[in-house]
Amino acid sequence: MFRYQRQVRFQEVDAAGLMFFPNFLVVCHEAMEDFFGELSGGYAGLIRGRGLGLPCVALESQFIAPLRHGDTFEVELSVSKLGSRSLQLSYRFVRGAELCATVHQTVVLTDLQRVVSAPMPDDVRELCARHLSPVGGAD
Amino acid sequence: MFRYQRQVRFQEVDAAGLMFFPNFLVVCHEAMEDFFGELSGGYAGLIRGRGLGLPCVALESQFIAPLRHGDTFEVELSVSKLGSRSLQLSYRFVRGAELCATVHQTVVLTDLQRVVSAPMPDDVRELCARHLSPVGGAD
Amino acid sequence: MFRYQRQVRFQEVDAAGLMFFPNFLVVCHEAMEDFFGELSGGYAGLIRGRGLGLPCVALESQFIAPLRHGDTFEVELSVSKLGSRSLQLSYRFVRGAELCATVHQTVVLTDLQRVVSAPMPDDVRELCARHLSPVGGAD
Amino acid sequence: MFRYQRQVRFQEVDAAGLMFFPNFLVVCHEAMEDFFGELSGGYAGLIRGRGLGLPCVALESQFIAPLRHGDTFEVELSVSKLGSRSLQLSYRFVRGAELCATVHQTVVLTDLQRVVSAPMPDDVRELCARHLSPVGGAD
Repeated sequence: MFRYQRQVRFQEVDAAGLMFFPNFLVVCHEAMEDFFGELSGGYAGLIRGRGLGLPCVALESQFIAPLRHGDTFEVELSVSKLGSRSLQLSYRFVRGAELCATVHQTVVLTDLQRVVSAPMPDDVRELCARHLSPVGGAD
Repeated sequence: MFRYQRQVRFQEVDAAGLMFFPNFLVVCHEAMEDFFGELSGGYAGLIRGRGLGLPCVALESQFIAPLRHGDTFEVELSVSKLGSRSLQLSYRFVRGAELCATVHQTVVLTDLQRVVSAPMPDDVRELCARHLSPVGGAD
Repeated sequence: MFRYQRQVRFQEVDAAGLMFFPNFLVVCHEAMEDFFGELSGGYAGLIRGRGLGLPCVALESQFIAPLRHGDTFEVELSVSKLGSRSLQLSYRFVRGAELCATVHQTVVLTDLQRVVSAPMPDDVRELCARHLSPVGGAD
Repeated sequence: MFRYQRQVRFQEVDAAGLMFFPNFLVVCHEAMEDFFGELSGGYAGLIRGRGLGLPCVALESQFIAPLRHGDTFEVELSVSKLGSRSLQLSYRFVRGAELCATVHQTVVLTDLQRVVSAPMPDDVRELCARHLSPVGGAD
């Protein structure tokens, strides 16, 4: 499991005073960037250097408890499925002992020049395999 | 069905040159705001005037075709479920004849002061009922 | 003068309930995109088709009155200086009769491949010249 | 001087591939939040607990060198003026040895309930005084 810590920023809440729900997904992507930061060149190297991306093709979220400005929370990221050209990432938003949100996201390894799926490079696969944790299983 | 038209803005794409996936959900919320614009005081009147909100509790999305800077698209919003304190909104992103994304979102009528569910006001229910279109059915 | 109308969106306010100040600048850029929409291919055609951009090199803003969720306002855009490779755009945010903010922004015509300044294309110059309104003068 | 480190995120660049200029100001606000994090209750405590805010009333920026996805940079924040109800914050964006942007921002201590200026609380003044560094002077 990969852990990413964050605080809700001043501008991430909406007129209702709660973290705006698309911002949970922005945070997921930040966690994903940091997860892939271990690759040589990092996530930006994958995108800009190798011309490969990981666009999201499917998403499923539950929002259980709202977050407010200043709240500190942790995102637990794990790889819940690992295919030859795609993977599923699962995220749990936890504030103290409380589960606030869950996100399951399918991303596809993509050749950004042609916008078609591509086989997963070895270093991406190896990193994902190390964090593979089928949903419901241990990490 | 309620229609909302938009163009992909300069800053809505990411380093891969494609509309960043959380921005699809930002656009859904814009469409929802405009949908509720018909209420007296509009969506802002609901939030700021009546202290009621519609936070998202569940989300399911498919991203089928990417959008790029300058692309014009239409969002088709319909109410796919209507409960006593919650509703499901369904969104289809269409560029010309091409379906680019679908989103199904459950929102709960919420007393923002106490952050607990609240019964749906008559004008909200009436507006939603007029756009009720169970998924798979006609509009 | 070019006019752009907008409403403050649900997520554009911050935890203080006021439009987050960088969002004024996001709105300026939206107005600028629409201003250049008249070019063949629009602003996206300039960026993606011709490889030219207009990055901001200097900015000066006054925020006079706050905007809140649901507020309707108008942005008045004019070209306040027109050089051979750069221009200054001036924006006034007006809500009803009240001036809420002013922004003066210098942008430089830029070859995005090499990230160096470039001479202004004729259609860009011609469009800007038509909206030229030195600050303090009439439009 | 207060230092804040950051990497340019995947979604912070625009269709030209450069950090979108309003995002520099978002980053300034993040640095400011962290700067005030030392107050009891942090910045969120000031806003939500004490009903005080620091809205921006004036802004001046120079953008000298563009930032790209994955770039690591540091923001140097200092208090360049300290009044009884307002202060000026100055920010320098530095990537390695290169100065990329400067921002000078005037904020006013504000009673958020009534949206009028308020005297600066002692802890805010004391923190600012410790980081006071008139522009051009040493830190």
